[in-house]
Amino acid sequence: MTIQDLKPAPADSVQIIDAAMDAVEAAMFNVVNSDVQVLRDASRHILEAGGKRVRPRLSMLTYIACGGTDFEYAAPPAAAVELMHTASVVHDDINDHGVVRRGRPSVNAIWGRTFALLTGDFLFTSVYQLMAPYGELNKILADAATALVEGETLQAYAVKNNQFTSENYARIIALKTAALFRAATELGARLAGAQESVVQAMADYGYNLGLAFQIVDDILDIVGDEKTLGKTSGIDLAQGRGFAAVDESQEKTEAGDIVESIKQKLLSGNRLAEAQAQALALSQMAIQYLDILPDSEAKAELIDHANKVVNRDH
Amino acid sequence: MTIQDLKPAPADSVQIIDAAMDAVEAAMFNVVNSDVQVLRDASRHILEAGGKRVRPRLSMLTYIACGGTDFEYAAPPAAAVELMHTASVVHDDINDHGVVRRGRPSVNAIWGRTFALLTGDFLFTSVYQLMAPYGELNKILADAATALVEGETLQAYAVKNNQFTSENYARIIALKTAALFRAATELGARLAGAQESVVQAMADYGYNLGLAFQIVDDILDIVGDEKTLGKTSGIDLAQGRGFAAVDESQEKTEAGDIVESIKQKLLSGNRLAEAQAQALALSQMAIQYLDILPDSEAKAELIDHANKVVNRDH
Repeated sequence: MTIQDLKPAPADSVQIIDAAMDAVEAAMFNVVNSDVQVLRDASRHILEAGGKRVRPRLSMLTYIACGGTDFEYAAPPAAAVELMHTASVVHDDINDHGVVRRGRPSVNAIWGRTFALLTGDFLFTSVYQLMAPYGELNKILADAATALVEGETLQAYAVKNNQFTSENYARIIALKTAALFRAATELGARLAGAQESVVQAMADYGYNLGLAFQIVDDILDIVGDEKTLGKTSGIDLAQGRGFAAVDESQEKTEAGDIVESIKQKLLSGNRLAEAQAQALALSQMAIQYLDILPDSEAKAELIDHANKVVNRDH
Repeated sequence: MTIQDLKPAPADSVQIIDAAMDAVEAAMFNVVNSDVQVLRDASRHILEAGGKRVRPRLSMLTYIACGGTDFEYAAPPAAAVELMHTASVVHDDINDHGVVRRGRPSVNAIWGRTFALLTGDFLFTSVYQLMAPYGELNKILADAATALVEGETLQAYAVKNNQFTSENYARIIALKTAALFRAATELGARLAGAQESVVQAMADYGYNLGLAFQIVDDILDIVGDEKTLGKTSGIDLAQGRGFAAVDESQEKTEAGDIVESIKQKLLSGNRLAEAQAQALALSQMAIQYLDILPDSEAKAELIDHANKVVNRDH
């Protein structure tokens, strides 16, 4: 398949995208419909709280932008990406003692630690359930899931041992956030049957967008308040995350030079403004990867996402 | 393939089985070799503590008994079954405050709750890594993983709410233990390319053996001591597990009549002796499912496992 073979999105693409996201919602709520009431209730609680659905939306937009039209086929992997993220925040709230998540009491706050731990485990196995029919695509999400846990672990370790170096920060956000964003967009492209060059470009779009997203998230964590963010704010900052503790390590990391340069610049002057500028640079780099796609409403929204990620207040 | 096509195990089957289990060990330690030191160290700690490797051994024995000879191919799913079990015990030790596991300090005791939680998550994602190349076989382990978490949740809920009915007990052991045993033997048979009737018989063997195994485990939990079991004993009993709290619910469960009858009998007379007798009945039922296999050393060990599971003290 060549680029020219990719079908542009139809004119009524708002409805199309809404239909795609409805399929994602259905896939998520269907898979967590356990016979075990506490797992069903706790899973629904955290899913019904909303969240921005950023990752599955990027997956479905990529799928549509690459010419995909079968939402029943593409929705379960997108749903799996969101559940993987959700599993990690449920466990994160145990470790961080977070009591507010997405503007509601956390699973931990309502059901207690034991059931929050098991609900997170259940969301993990739900990811696995959703992906099981997708053959070799399982590798993509398995890698992203492993990266996410590794990133969370590095973060907890860095906090505990006061080792929040710039190298660690770059490695952490690459693993805990950018890897899953990349999986989301790579899955969308592969599910649409895009050729390899397009798949790689979309993976790179997701990866760079994920880095920008996390940097902005950390900025908001420093400047935001609970009402705006809908989660227990100040926790990350209190634990030494974000930019306050970066040092001047010169080592290169998976996240590459641009992220390293973020950290270096944060050492002097207005750290938050510099971080914002670097997030902008990453988001613009992400947008460049979209050049390979034909114009469509879905592509336009992917561009819009990259622009908005650095201009949000929650 | 017919039964007659199944190759009998070679004469030097002890060496063969040792080689198969060596391949399982290699697959397990390879997949947990994370760049993140704490995950690597904690995973190795719990794996090096040993454990009986019952589940992967059953998987490899089934594979060999069904004529399989490619251990590099069959070992990763068997390793995944063991890591799934290991993930659950690491998380279980958080919820139960267990400080001894397999005769060593638990991950929780050494690294603390946060890293124990993340190590369990990492073992989950390692399961997913190992299974990713195995296409439709992923469904088998995804179902077993979900069942395991559901069973653990039902158990925690029953303990918390003093609802340890006989119905709940039967449902719990079916979900938390028998489902993963069934996955182990079903995977072994499918990986060997056994015909469907053989696959189902081996799945039933694993399921019934799993029920017997858990009943005996609960008996040992009541009568055992820490030295013999190598884990913090008395916790399960203290939390109301086992047989002390069963009631006379008449409802049928997935585990079926035989398990229900166990619970009923436990209500009167010598509960532990009756439970032992029912475990024996389940193990003998398991052995009957092996009749479909041609004689081999691997089959002989599968029979031996079923006999020994009810005659063990640890």
